[in-house]
Amino acid sequence: MKSLNVGLIGTGYMGKCHALAWNAVASVFGDVPRPRLAVLAEASQDLAERKARELGFERATGDWRRLVSDPDIDVVSITTPNAFHPEMAIAALEAGKHIWCEKPMATKLEDAERMLAAARASGRVAALGYNYIQNPAMRLIRRILEEGRIGEVNHVRLEMDEDFMANPEDLFTLKSEASSGHGALDDFGVHPLSLLRALLGGVRRMCGHMAKPYADRPVQGGGRRKVETYDIATVLMELDNGASGVLALNRSAWGRKGRIFVQIFGSKGTVVYDQERMNEVQLYTVDGLKETQGFRTILTGPQHPPYDRFIPAPGHGLGFNDLKIIECRELMRRIGGEKAHLIEFEDGIRIERTVDAMARSAHEGRWVEVAAGG
Amino acid sequence: MKSLNVGLIGTGYMGKCHALAWNAVASVFGDVPRPRLAVLAEASQDLAERKARELGFERATGDWRRLVSDPDIDVVSITTPNAFHPEMAIAALEAGKHIWCEKPMATKLEDAERMLAAARASGRVAALGYNYIQNPAMRLIRRILEEGRIGEVNHVRLEMDEDFMANPEDLFTLKSEASSGHGALDDFGVHPLSLLRALLGGVRRMCGHMAKPYADRPVQGGGRRKVETYDIATVLMELDNGASGVLALNRSAWGRKGRIFVQIFGSKGTVVYDQERMNEVQLYTVDGLKETQGFRTILTGPQHPPYDRFIPAPGHGLGFNDLKIIECRELMRRIGGEKAHLIEFEDGIRIERTVDAMARSAHEGRWVEVAAGG
Amino acid sequence: MKSLNVGLIGTGYMGKCHALAWNAVASVFGDVPRPRLAVLAEASQDLAERKARELGFERATGDWRRLVSDPDIDVVSITTPNAFHPEMAIAALEAGKHIWCEKPMATKLEDAERMLAAARASGRVAALGYNYIQNPAMRLIRRILEEGRIGEVNHVRLEMDEDFMANPEDLFTLKSEASSGHGALDDFGVHPLSLLRALLGGVRRMCGHMAKPYADRPVQGGGRRKVETYDIATVLMELDNGASGVLALNRSAWGRKGRIFVQIFGSKGTVVYDQERMNEVQLYTVDGLKETQGFRTILTGPQHPPYDRFIPAPGHGLGFNDLKIIECRELMRRIGGEKAHLIEFEDGIRIERTVDAMARSAHEGRWVEVAAGG
Amino acid sequence: MKSLNVGLIGTGYMGKCHALAWNAVASVFGDVPRPRLAVLAEASQDLAERKARELGFERATGDWRRLVSDPDIDVVSITTPNAFHPEMAIAALEAGKHIWCEKPMATKLEDAERMLAAARASGRVAALGYNYIQNPAMRLIRRILEEGRIGEVNHVRLEMDEDFMANPEDLFTLKSEASSGHGALDDFGVHPLSLLRALLGGVRRMCGHMAKPYADRPVQGGGRRKVETYDIATVLMELDNGASGVLALNRSAWGRKGRIFVQIFGSKGTVVYDQERMNEVQLYTVDGLKETQGFRTILTGPQHPPYDRFIPAPGHGLGFNDLKIIECRELMRRIGGEKAHLIEFEDGIRIERTVDAMARSAHEGRWVEVAAGG
Repeated sequence: MKSLNVGLIGTGYMGKCHALAWNAVASVFGDVPRPRLAVLAEASQDLAERKARELGFERATGDWRRLVSDPDIDVVSITTPNAFHPEMAIAALEAGKHIWCEKPMATKLEDAERMLAAARASGRVAALGYNYIQNPAMRLIRRILEEGRIGEVNHVRLEMDEDFMANPEDLFTLKSEASSGHGALDDFGVHPLSLLRALLGGVRRMCGHMAKPYADRPVQGGGRRKVETYDIATVLMELDNGASGVLALNRSAWGRKGRIFVQIFGSKGTVVYDQERMNEVQLYTVDGLKETQGFRTILTGPQHPPYDRFIPAPGHGLGFNDLKIIECRELMRRIGGEKAHLIEFEDGIRIERTVDAMARSAHEGRWVEVAAGG
Repeated sequence: MKSLNVGLIGTGYMGKCHALAWNAVASVFGDVPRPRLAVLAEASQDLAERKARELGFERATGDWRRLVSDPDIDVVSITTPNAFHPEMAIAALEAGKHIWCEKPMATKLEDAERMLAAARASGRVAALGYNYIQNPAMRLIRRILEEGRIGEVNHVRLEMDEDFMANPEDLFTLKSEASSGHGALDDFGVHPLSLLRALLGGVRRMCGHMAKPYADRPVQGGGRRKVETYDIATVLMELDNGASGVLALNRSAWGRKGRIFVQIFGSKGTVVYDQERMNEVQLYTVDGLKETQGFRTILTGPQHPPYDRFIPAPGHGLGFNDLKIIECRELMRRIGGEKAHLIEFEDGIRIERTVDAMARSAHEGRWVEVAAGG
Repeated sequence: MKSLNVGLIGTGYMGKCHALAWNAVASVFGDVPRPRLAVLAEASQDLAERKARELGFERATGDWRRLVSDPDIDVVSITTPNAFHPEMAIAALEAGKHIWCEKPMATKLEDAERMLAAARASGRVAALGYNYIQNPAMRLIRRILEEGRIGEVNHVRLEMDEDFMANPEDLFTLKSEASSGHGALDDFGVHPLSLLRALLGGVRRMCGHMAKPYADRPVQGGGRRKVETYDIATVLMELDNGASGVLALNRSAWGRKGRIFVQIFGSKGTVVYDQERMNEVQLYTVDGLKETQGFRTILTGPQHPPYDRFIPAPGHGLGFNDLKIIECRELMRRIGGEKAHLIEFEDGIRIERTVDAMARSAHEGRWVEVAAGG
Repeated sequence: MKSLNVGLIGTGYMGKCHALAWNAVASVFGDVPRPRLAVLAEASQDLAERKARELGFERATGDWRRLVSDPDIDVVSITTPNAFHPEMAIAALEAGKHIWCEKPMATKLEDAERMLAAARASGRVAALGYNYIQNPAMRLIRRILEEGRIGEVNHVRLEMDEDFMANPEDLFTLKSEASSGHGALDDFGVHPLSLLRALLGGVRRMCGHMAKPYADRPVQGGGRRKVETYDIATVLMELDNGASGVLALNRSAWGRKGRIFVQIFGSKGTVVYDQERMNEVQLYTVDGLKETQGFRTILTGPQHPPYDRFIPAPGHGLGFNDLKIIECRELMRRIGGEKAHLIEFEDGIRIERTVDAMARSAHEGRWVEVAAGG
């Protein structure tokens, strides 16, 4: 595997997260060549230079187009606001770069479809930043399912809740404008749907509902403006595998900080996961004596790879940023021609089509079907 | 308040629970006269006599009609299988008895409507056995809501899960026959809906879905029989108060034993409750320093009446049967002409109409509305 | 088994608890004859009569001596403050009554020894009110230990914490007077030690420490008075079976309401129990695949007798008062000549000797040994 | 602040952890200059070179003495087995290097005292790897204590449990040899004691006990060998601030993976922390309405610095390795002449003296005092 020269566009929440991952991946895993943090692009040259210093990139540019056309660059991390993804991703792919683009692909489905076409045409790796699937806990769940430990799955419940929109007196922002998307459904829904896809597959029928907890919000300088997006969404689902499901999303859920709650019911057991306790998996199986059956709390440890690459002792805990490091290594393996555990555009588009269908269903107040295979 | 002469029909799970409540209510509360456990009716005279001895009833009969027509009896506990409720309840009401009937009212909505008519015509108290609403924890939640501690409620999630139908190799029973009802929806749904009604009110629009985890089950003697009921149900809801909601029910949920999980989101906080930990309430509010906000686990205690009538020390724990004792005392107060916290037929019918509409919605695959006020 | 005529002395916290148990035991279990609630004694005739009405006793007396000498009475519940136990218990035993005395036996060890002598001389059953050992959860733990599910036990940690003494500005009461005993050690210590005895046996060596969180407390009318008792106690232990142990007690532990936390470590697993979640047992064993080992939360249910006598469905929850009902039935079986699971004076005295030795050890600042067998 | 040239000795569990921290610290914090990972020393040149490549060090050596005498090096990470610390630390300090030495300082107290003398003589920074104190959760607790949120602390309980020695059939290793130290007491005790020191200060009197869960262990090739160390230790404590305390340690505690359980009781509230859920703090305070008091679970977030340097969203979770990055930045600030939150040799020696006194106390079976200030 040859070393990769990395370009990074954007240095916000996810930009820093990518930078930390590129910086750490070789030391953590020891089985991939150390990437060169080559170029960082930001909105201005000044900002780019400051951030390049902070994040350890060699060069800086205020023009992302120069980064994507730089012949020295092998792979581009795209971490700008979602509306910028299509243009940047397509340009990078057309310039022959591999890309690692934050989720969701785009704010409009047709843009995402164009991105997919560009990825197919380029023959390059186009991976999405669905890092929750990289959690060793999540891999353990996948293995539990694959090994039939809970039998055949027949029902799934997915919840994702945070509270950054919970205060009705917070100022009106872009998040409440229709141009930003539907609301919780696309802002949040893609995360639990990525877990669903990684664990069980797609959704074939769905009936959605969206709600506004607050009709309006204060505007800077006085007055109030009508909220245009839906901070709450709920969806009934029939999965490809025949199981029934529910999805519930709330970005105005006071007290929830990073909750993604997953309940998977099968014919021989149940698995439960809560992202706020990301180093734990709850498992109930019908093995053994009835009098001592119960949900067990499994703490992740070295027996749940690649936890062992971070810490040799069990129960010591990975953090959110560690998931990105795992994702980065999967991407590097994929670029190197190996099999990897990643959501690429081919799968990502299915998540976006599903979200689109859910929103349609909510607007039309009826069940909607998605073509087989999403 | 005069002492009541009690008749009990049925001595199964709920029959015993009623007997224990009638027996304990005066000693626990000290503010209601000791009821006389007068007559017990069972399927045969023999069984009735044995059970009367065990449960402390003075007389026994193998004919419930003799019990409901006994001039000595003031109030009749009806705890037989649901299909028997209509006939027994109507006969008792027509004989001028107060009744305490287990939920749900009936297996068919038209029967429940007839029961309501009989109750109205009789002028007697016709109460239902929705004992979960009697939990001091639930009363605390009601008070939290009424005092606006979590602001205006905008989203609710209700789950009820047990695992008595979870084993696909358990024999086919009545529970899997269409004659027993829809399945989880009426078997379970009424419980969370009773909490919803006691806390927040009714449901005006709904879109349901029902699923069968297992297509067939083994039959005694060999072979398999097709399952006719739905062990899983999920429903999107719009509440009378404008909030959005989700209801999810699963009586084949491995590992869940008596879980009724309630999440209520408001503009200033969130309340969470789990029936499997029935002496706890989770509350998040935005009061105080941001750095120490968090969900607090409130253990019920003497400050949450009527816990104090059972135990003077906090955190020592009530049990499921204690809820029935509280319900019994509410019923006695109601019969005595006082205000009481009970679900009577007038409210109960709204729960049953809601369940009926949910089932209709599931069968027709579309949203259904219920007339205002349920 | 013949029916018992019951006398009750005292109607406080525990008096009511006894009354409820005597009243419910036959209905709950169905396998013991219904006791006759014959006589209730309280400090005055008036109070006794009022309480007898409330709690369902036939007769009332303001003189407990009349109760214990009443030839009609078979068994006497003694639930008065601890200082009264010796006189009452000895009188009742000498009058040929069985007794059910609340714990601890006495405020002074020599009194407890006299009580034991009286019990031996009488040939009657002299049982103590250690109801926590009656929890089906606790019986499950005993069975787990007996079956070797966690191997050989080598370490135990016991904690008991409540917060009724936690407020330093609460008025000085009897609990802070030396005459009431040592403090947390005898007030609380007997409970976890009763669990220890029921599960694992006695303590042979110990080194204790006692502490006063608050030097003084306000006195009604002004001023402050020095606190004479120790609200906190900690003890190192060597158990009869060779295991090491720690005991920690705090009756000024803010936020703890009825916590008795038990951790038992063995060569093949670990058991954990928290009285505040009295329907749960935590069990870790090394069986099965390493990758899915974890502490499992076992919810008690019908498979954990005698839970089934209360409720046929699992996970629905017993309450604190239910434990007394179980204890009452054990007592009735014992009086009837059957084997029973009870702490009688013969075992109770060992608990009191242990507490006494712990206090001595704390006062003298050194390890103390207890004669083999307590 | 000038950039630092870093030397690393050792590449085991903690060596890798140091390497990851040096590599990430500048990118995470953005306010310290990027360190140069200059030289890595391992037992052989070959191994050193392989590890240098993996962990991103420029040069490698099989001789640690060359590293500590390298004029290019500013600071040396010492992560070798504890027995090597004294020689390496003293050599590095004498060569004028700052050092970052893993805990504990040494296997014998006199060696630790020599290390302290060398540090004093050198005038260099000599920091210890007590990374648990760096957790934002722990800093929050410190702030809660300093602000008097739980009033005056009067009782503390500390537990540390893992299960790497729990299997009695695991082969005899160095950990069971007396030369490795006392056992759990020095292996584990320093961790909770570091938390205690960072939060509340030192221990002035103590009475310890040590126990061997397993008398012997199998030896490779057959037979069994007597265990010489104590996998379990328990200690009663009187703290410098007057509070009473208990310390319980068990490295054969089945099911515990990285549990450090801390309970701090004060006159106005209680704080509880569990290292296995390192992103949570439990807090009970007596503020507000009594009916809604309860332990609240605080999820760490950006309001708990320096969490914000890792992730801008709350509740997303830091991991164990992140704590080392925070420690690394504190060290860099300290070297740069700023105030920092670190345990240096001056404090570390107090922890080791405390452990030494605890072991003495256990061996002699009596209370032992430590000079004021440890």
